[in-house]
Amino acid sequence: MFESAELGHRVDKDDYEAEVPELRAQLLDAQFDLLDCATFSVVILVNGVDAAGKGETVNLLNEWLDPRHVVTRAFDVPSSEERERPVMWRFWRALPPKGKIGVLFGNWYEYPIRERVGKRLKRSVLEQRLAEINRFEEMLTREGVVLLKFWFHLSKDAQKERFKKLESDPLTRWRVTKTDWRNYKQYARRHDVAEHVLRHTSTAEAPWIIVDGSDDRYRGLLVGRTLLAALRKRLDIGTRWKPRLSTAPMPPQLDGRNVLRELTLDRPMSKRDYDHELERLQGRLAVLTRGNGFSAHSLVLVFEGMDAAGKGGAIRRITAALDARLYQVVPIAAPSEEERALPYLWRFWRHVPRRGKVTIFDRSWYGRVLVERVEGFCSEADWMRAYEEINDFEDALTSAGAVVVKFWLAISDAEQLARFEARANAPHKRFKITDEDWRNREKWPLYERAVCDMIDRTSTETTPWTLIEADNKRYARIKVLRTICERLEAAFDAQKGAKA
Amino acid sequence: MFESAELGHRVDKDDYEAEVPELRAQLLDAQFDLLDCATFSVVILVNGVDAAGKGETVNLLNEWLDPRHVVTRAFDVPSSEERERPVMWRFWRALPPKGKIGVLFGNWYEYPIRERVGKRLKRSVLEQRLAEINRFEEMLTREGVVLLKFWFHLSKDAQKERFKKLESDPLTRWRVTKTDWRNYKQYARRHDVAEHVLRHTSTAEAPWIIVDGSDDRYRGLLVGRTLLAALRKRLDIGTRWKPRLSTAPMPPQLDGRNVLRELTLDRPMSKRDYDHELERLQGRLAVLTRGNGFSAHSLVLVFEGMDAAGKGGAIRRITAALDARLYQVVPIAAPSEEERALPYLWRFWRHVPRRGKVTIFDRSWYGRVLVERVEGFCSEADWMRAYEEINDFEDALTSAGAVVVKFWLAISDAEQLARFEARANAPHKRFKITDEDWRNREKWPLYERAVCDMIDRTSTETTPWTLIEADNKRYARIKVLRTICERLEAAFDAQKGAKA
Repeated sequence: MFESAELGHRVDKDDYEAEVPELRAQLLDAQFDLLDCATFSVVILVNGVDAAGKGETVNLLNEWLDPRHVVTRAFDVPSSEERERPVMWRFWRALPPKGKIGVLFGNWYEYPIRERVGKRLKRSVLEQRLAEINRFEEMLTREGVVLLKFWFHLSKDAQKERFKKLESDPLTRWRVTKTDWRNYKQYARRHDVAEHVLRHTSTAEAPWIIVDGSDDRYRGLLVGRTLLAALRKRLDIGTRWKPRLSTAPMPPQLDGRNVLRELTLDRPMSKRDYDHELERLQGRLAVLTRGNGFSAHSLVLVFEGMDAAGKGGAIRRITAALDARLYQVVPIAAPSEEERALPYLWRFWRHVPRRGKVTIFDRSWYGRVLVERVEGFCSEADWMRAYEEINDFEDALTSAGAVVVKFWLAISDAEQLARFEARANAPHKRFKITDEDWRNREKWPLYERAVCDMIDRTSTETTPWTLIEADNKRYARIKVLRTICERLEAAFDAQKGAKA
Repeated sequence: MFESAELGHRVDKDDYEAEVPELRAQLLDAQFDLLDCATFSVVILVNGVDAAGKGETVNLLNEWLDPRHVVTRAFDVPSSEERERPVMWRFWRALPPKGKIGVLFGNWYEYPIRERVGKRLKRSVLEQRLAEINRFEEMLTREGVVLLKFWFHLSKDAQKERFKKLESDPLTRWRVTKTDWRNYKQYARRHDVAEHVLRHTSTAEAPWIIVDGSDDRYRGLLVGRTLLAALRKRLDIGTRWKPRLSTAPMPPQLDGRNVLRELTLDRPMSKRDYDHELERLQGRLAVLTRGNGFSAHSLVLVFEGMDAAGKGGAIRRITAALDARLYQVVPIAAPSEEERALPYLWRFWRHVPRRGKVTIFDRSWYGRVLVERVEGFCSEADWMRAYEEINDFEDALTSAGAVVVKFWLAISDAEQLARFEARANAPHKRFKITDEDWRNREKWPLYERAVCDMIDRTSTETTPWTLIEADNKRYARIKVLRTICERLEAAFDAQKGAKA
C-alpha cells in the first residue's frame, strides 16, 4: 500500500516554480466558485506518520487558498464538554458549512490507530470502529461533502533522518518530542495498523490518497492538484450531482395489516386511576433522575405522532417531574439557514445532552422519513439512506451512555378530527390550527405507510420504538411515563451488572 | 432591602387554587404571543440564599409555561472550553434567541458574591465587577431583552428551619450538604454582601425583585405574576418599543482636519526592502506564536478599511506565517438568521479564541458604527451605544489574556478608483466589483466621518487602533506585520513583568 510512496518522489525547484502560479490561480478560482454556489463543502482529512510534512503541507495549502474560507481544526485531548458526549460529537461540531473547505487534523482516524498500536484496543473493536467510520463517511459523501483523505507517509529511515534534521536546528528542535522517538520505535507496528486501517476505509467515494512525505515540493503539488481536481470535478457536475442511488424498492404491502392498525387506540382509564398513577410515576421519575445512578447516563426522549396526538401534553407531564436545571426541550420545526448548510443530522447532534442531563425532542430526526418523505421535501435516496444513518446516530448515543426512548403517539383519524375541531373553537392562541394541518389529514394513508416503515427499520434492541395508544390522553401519558421509568431502571441495572 | 421579604408573606391554599388556573392560561397566551412576534427575548435571573425555593419556583414556572420554549441553564464549575475564554463567554452562549424565555441559575452574580463573601475578592475589584455587570445588563436591555432579576430571600432562622426540615425527610436529606451549613454560618456576611451587590445593580430597566422564600405558594404567584406583567407590558408596546435614547449629539467638525486626512497615504517601499522585511517579520511572528509565551494569551486581529484597501492581502501575509492549526479567519458579512435573533455582539463572541489561538476578523463588530451607521441599517441610538459596548467587549477580551490588534487600512479615493478599475478588468472571479461597491464610493465623506468617530471613541490604551497608510500595499503589509509582532512582544514582556 505504501510502495509507491517510498520511491522518494521529488519535484525539481524549476518545475515547481513554473507550475505553482497557475495552480494557485486555478485553486483560488475553484475556491470562489465553491463559495458562490455553496452547494457542497470539502472536508480534507490529514493523517499519517510523524514528521511527514502534514502541518507544512496544510500551511502551504492555506497560503495558496483564500484562508478566509478555510476552516482548519486540530483535535487533541477532548475538552470536558466533549468527553461527556459521543466521540463523534466534536467532529460534528467542526464540519464546515456548504461553500467552505474544512481541514481536520487528528480526526476520527487518530484515536483508533493510536489505541490499536498501543494494544489498548482489541482487533474486534477496531473492526467495529472502522465499520462505523465507513458508514459515517458514506453519510458525509451522500450529503454531498467532497471528502479527501490524505495519508502522509515516510519510510522508517526517512523518518529518522527527518527527526535528526529537525533536532539539529535550534529553531525546530522543540518539534521533536520524546513521544515522537517512542513512536518511532513502534514504526513497524504503526505501519501494519495503518495499512490495515487504510485498506478497510478506502472506498470508491472517499479513497485514501497516500502522499510521499519526503519532498516538500512533491507533496505540496500532489495535495494541491488533488484538491483542484476534486473541486473542478464536482463544480462541473454542478446541480446535476446526485448521491449514489439505491435501486432497492420498499417492499409492497400485500394486505391492510400493519403495526398501527393492530393497536387498540382507545384505552379506558378513570380520572382516579390516572391521578394516582401520575403522582406515583412522576415521583419515581423524579427520584431516578436525581439519584446517583443517572450521573453515568443521559436521557434522550423522542416524541413523534400525528398533529394533535398529544405530544406537548405528554412532554409537560414529564418535565413536571424533572428539575428545570436538568432538561432541555427541543421543538423541531424547519431548519435554520445555518443548519441547512450542514449535513442533515448536524442540527440534532448540536443538542446532544451531556451526562446527567435530559433532552426531549418534540419531533426529531425522524422528520426525514416522515414529513420530508411524504411531502417530497427530500429525494427518495435521501430518506432511504436515513434509516441506517439514524440507527448509527442512536447507536453512538447509547454507546456514550444515553438512554434513548422513542414514542410514537398513535391516534385515530376520528380522534384527530375531534381534537382539531375542539382546537379551532378554543379561545387560546396556543392551539392554532393552520390550513396545513387540515391538508396533512388528507395524506393520512401516506403517513401511515411512512410510520410503519420507520418502525420496522429503526426499532432496534437498544433503541426500540414504543407505540402509545393515544386516543385516551390519560392512558397515553401514563404509558409514556412508565416506559421512561422502566428504561432508566433497566439501564441502571445493566450498569450495576457491568460493574459487578 | 430585605425587610419586606422577612414579613413571612403567605398565600392561602384556597386563594392560590382560585388564582392559578387563570394565571397559567394568561402566561401561556403571553408566551405564545412572544413566540409569534419573536421581537424580543426574556432573561430571568435566579439568585438568592440557599433553600429559599429557587429550584422549586423555576420548576413550577416551567410547569405553567410551555417548556418547549423555555431554555433553563444552571452554571456550575466552568468547562475547560469556558475557562480559556473571558468569564462572560459562557453566559453569552446561554442567551435565549428572540421569542424564547431563558432562565439562568448561578449566573454572572454568583461568582462575585461568593468570592466576596469568602474574602477572595477585594472590595475595589467587586465594585469593578458590578460596574461591568451594570454595563452588560444595560446592553441587554437596550438590545430589547426583558431582564427579570429575582432574589430569593430567607431570614437566618427561616433558613435553619428549612434545612432541618429537608434533613428530616429521607427523600430530601441529600439536598442539604456540608457546604450549605458552612454557608449558613456566614449568613450575616452573605446578607451584607448581597445587600451591597443588589443595591448597586438595581437599575430602572432591570430592578431586583426580592422574593420572600418562606411560602411556596406566595413565591410562585409573585414570580408568575411578575413575569406575566413584564411580558404583557412589552407585548402591548409591540413594535413601538425603543431603547432609551441618548439625546447627546455627536460633536460637529469645525474644520476639514481629521486623523485620516493627516496621514500620508502613499509610502514608498522598494520590492527588495519589502521582500527582506516580509521574510524577517513573518519569521518573527512564526516564532512568537509558536513559543511558550503565547500559551497564556490569544490573539484577536481586526481588519477594517474601505473596499479594496487590501485587507485580504494583508491577512494572507499574516496567515502565511502561522500554523494552520492555530488560527481561524472569520469573514464578517450580513448576520445569519440565528445571529439576528441574539444581541448584536453574540455573533462575535461565538468566535472568541481560546488560549494559544488566533482569530482574524475580516471586518468585525465595527460594522455597526461604520456601514450600519452610514447606510442607516440601525438606529442612531444603536450605533451611539455601540462604542461603549465595543469597548467593554474588548476589555473582556484583554482581561482574559487576549492581545487585540485593530487595523484601519486607509487608502485615498484615487487609489480605490484605480484598484476598482483594475479589478473590473481582472480575469479572476475572486475580485468581483459589484454595483454596491460603486455606490459605497459615493458615500466616502460619510464613511470618513464614521471612521474618525470610531477611532476617537474606541482607541483605548489596551486596544488602540493602528492606522495603516495603505496606498502602497507593500508598506501597508509590513506595517501590519510589525505592529502585530510588537504588540505580542509587549504583552509577553508585561506577562513576565507581572510574574517577576
